[in-house]
Amino acid sequence: MNPAEEDIAHAVDGEIGLVSPKDFHSSTPFEFQGGQKISEFTLRYETYGTLNAARDNVVLVAHALTGDHHCAGVHSLNDRKTGWWNSMIGPGKPIDTNRFFVLCANCIGGCQGSTGPKSVNPDTGKPYNLSFPFVTVRDMVKSQKILLDSLGIRELYAAIGGSMGGMQVLQWAIEYPEYVRRIIPMATTWRQNAQAMAFDEVGRQAIMQDPEWDEGNYDENKGPNVGLAIARMMAHITYLSDRSMNRKFGRKRQDGDSNRYSFDIEFEVESYLKHQALSFINRFDANTYLYFTRALGYFDLASAYGSLDKAFQNLKCRALSVGFTTDWLFPPSQNREIVLAMLRQGVEASYSELDIDLGHDSFLIESEELFNLVRDFLNN
Amino acid sequence: MNPAEEDIAHAVDGEIGLVSPKDFHSSTPFEFQGGQKISEFTLRYETYGTLNAARDNVVLVAHALTGDHHCAGVHSLNDRKTGWWNSMIGPGKPIDTNRFFVLCANCIGGCQGSTGPKSVNPDTGKPYNLSFPFVTVRDMVKSQKILLDSLGIRELYAAIGGSMGGMQVLQWAIEYPEYVRRIIPMATTWRQNAQAMAFDEVGRQAIMQDPEWDEGNYDENKGPNVGLAIARMMAHITYLSDRSMNRKFGRKRQDGDSNRYSFDIEFEVESYLKHQALSFINRFDANTYLYFTRALGYFDLASAYGSLDKAFQNLKCRALSVGFTTDWLFPPSQNREIVLAMLRQGVEASYSELDIDLGHDSFLIESEELFNLVRDFLNN
Repeated sequence: MNPAEEDIAHAVDGEIGLVSPKDFHSSTPFEFQGGQKISEFTLRYETYGTLNAARDNVVLVAHALTGDHHCAGVHSLNDRKTGWWNSMIGPGKPIDTNRFFVLCANCIGGCQGSTGPKSVNPDTGKPYNLSFPFVTVRDMVKSQKILLDSLGIRELYAAIGGSMGGMQVLQWAIEYPEYVRRIIPMATTWRQNAQAMAFDEVGRQAIMQDPEWDEGNYDENKGPNVGLAIARMMAHITYLSDRSMNRKFGRKRQDGDSNRYSFDIEFEVESYLKHQALSFINRFDANTYLYFTRALGYFDLASAYGSLDKAFQNLKCRALSVGFTTDWLFPPSQNREIVLAMLRQGVEASYSELDIDLGHDSFLIESEELFNLVRDFLNN
Repeated sequence: MNPAEEDIAHAVDGEIGLVSPKDFHSSTPFEFQGGQKISEFTLRYETYGTLNAARDNVVLVAHALTGDHHCAGVHSLNDRKTGWWNSMIGPGKPIDTNRFFVLCANCIGGCQGSTGPKSVNPDTGKPYNLSFPFVTVRDMVKSQKILLDSLGIRELYAAIGGSMGGMQVLQWAIEYPEYVRRIIPMATTWRQNAQAMAFDEVGRQAIMQDPEWDEGNYDENKGPNVGLAIARMMAHITYLSDRSMNRKFGRKRQDGDSNRYSFDIEFEVESYLKHQALSFINRFDANTYLYFTRALGYFDLASAYGSLDKAFQNLKCRALSVGFTTDWLFPPSQNREIVLAMLRQGVEASYSELDIDLGHDSFLIESEELFNLVRDFLNN
C-alpha cells in the first residue's frame, strides 16, 4: 500500500481510524506497594468506542512489558503502523468498539507518556531516574483504578491482556473483585519460573553495566543504548519460537553467499535482531525496562496471598485463560495452573490452548481461533 | 572435603590424578578452510592412559565451545576442580584409561594454550587479534589430525564429544573415514537452527559493542569483560533447562526477604549467573568466543556436502548418537536426524535419548545411564 491507499484503509468501516491519546493527571499523592510515594502522577491512555449511559461497557486492555496505551487505530493518517492490537479491537472486531468502550493506559513507571523514571519529579525539578519508586503489577492496577474512578466508570465489563498485561488482569480480579466481571489473561503466568527471571536479569545487567547507564542518570537523548539493544535482542528471541524462527529465517543468508567469513551481519536472523534492537532503543527507556522487568520478577500470586488458591478465593468474575503451545517463556502449563486454581475456588473459569507457532508473541497475531475465543467470551 | 582429603582422593585408584598439558608445535604453515594461512601453530593437549604398541587404542575427546584440553585429572594436588569430564575418563571409567590412550586438544583458535587470536603472530610480533583466520570445525579437526600424525597414531579407536565437540566428531568421521573406527557425538547438531544462531549473535554483539573490545585489539589483561560476561550469562541459560533451573533455584531469594525492592542481586538464580560470568571472564578470551561461535554458525553438513546423506556416504565408522530430552539448544530431534541419515547410508548407527533434566549440559554430568551407553559402545 502506498500512503494514499493507507489513508483510505484507515478511514474505512471496520477500522478505528484516527485516535488521540489523552492524559489523566492526578494531583493526589500515590503510594506504591513498597511504601514510597510520589506527589502526583499522569497516565496517558487511549479509548475507543463510546461509554454507555450506565458506564458498564468498559473493556480494559492491559499492555505487555514493552507495549503502551496505543493499541488500536492510528495517530495520523500517515502512520504506517496501527496500534499493537488493532486486529483485536475495532468496530465488528473481537473487542467490538460498536459495543464496548475500550481503554488502555500506559502503565505507571512507563516511558510513553505516563509518569515514570524519566519524568520530572515536581519536588526536585529533576528526572526521577532511579529515585522513582519500585513499581509492582499491583501499583499498575491501582493507578489504573484511580483513572477509571475519575471517569466515573462503575465496573469493568472485562479486562484483557497478554504477558505482563495478563498479570495485570489477574491482579485486577483479585484486588477489585466487585468491580471486574470478566478477565482474559493470555500468555501469562502467576509467577515467573527461574528461566524467565534469569533472562530478565541478563537484560538488566546488559543495561546497568553499560557505562552510559550512569546509575540511571543518563541524559534524555543519550543513555545505555548498547545495553538496551542487547537486552532487547535477547528478549526478542524468548518471544518467538524455534519453529517460527526456522520458518521465517532458517539459515538464510542475506547475500546468499555461503563462502563468506566475517563477524558482520550475514544471516537474516541476525539482521532481524539488529532491526528489532534499533527500533526499540528509539522508543523505549532503559530505566523503565529495569523497573518493569523487576515488576515481572516480583509478581508472585502465591507468595503475595499465601497460595494461588487463596489469591483467587474472593474472585467474582468469570475467566478465560489462553495459553499458547509454543510459548516457552510463559508456557501453557502456567496458564493452565491459573484456571485449575480458580476452578478449585469455584470460579467459572476455562482454559484454551492454541497451537499457534509464534511462541510467546502468539497473542499479538491475527488468528481467527483466538479472535473467536475472545469474541465468544465477551458476548456470552 | 578439605584440601588434604582431596589430595588423597586424587591419588587413589580409579582416578587419573596428576596430569600435565603438553604442547605440540607445528612449524609447517596451516591453511584454514577460508584460504587464509598462519605460518606455524601450537596445540596444547593432554593425554591419559598409555598408547599401545599398535597405536590403535586412541580415544579422541573433542571439547565444546568454552571447554579445553583439560578434561580429566588435576594439574596440581591442590586443585579443587578436576578436568571437565573427569567422571567419564579414568581407570575403570567409561572411557577406561587402563585400556585406552585418551587425547584431548584445545582447539585451534582457542585461548587455553593453542594458537588463537590472542597468540603472537610470528610474522608481525604482535597478537593476531582479528587478523587471525576464521576457524571452522573442519579446521579444528584438520589441526588435530596433524597432531595425531606427529604422534604416529594410526587410527582413532573412537572420537567422542558433546556440543561443538560433537560437531568435530562428525567432521572427523566425514573427513577421515579410513582413520575413524567409532564416533559418539552427543548433544550436538548437524547445523544450528535459527534460534541457536540468534543467541550466538546476541553474545557476539554484546562483546563487539563493548567499547573495551576495540575491534579486537584489547590488551591481554583488559578487554570487553562486560560484553563477555553478558554473553556468558545468556548462553549459560541456554545450556540448562527450565526444569533444572526450577529445581535448583526456583524463586529462592538470597536473604529470604520478599519485601525488598532493589536492582541488586536478590534471587539465587541471579547470583548464580553472576558467579558464572565472573569465573568465565577470568578464563576465556572474548575474541575466541567470537571465532568459535562463528564456527558453530557456519557448521552445516548439508550445505557443505550437498545433503546430510551425502555428508555421511563414505563413513566407515560405527556411530552412537546421544540426545537429551531437555536439551533445547541442540534438541534431541537434531541428534536423531544424524543417525537417520547415517542409517540411510548403511552406516551402523544407533540413537539413544536420555531424559536427564539438565538441558544441553546433560552430557557433562555423572549419569550411570550415559556412562553405560559409552562403556558398552566402546567395549563392543
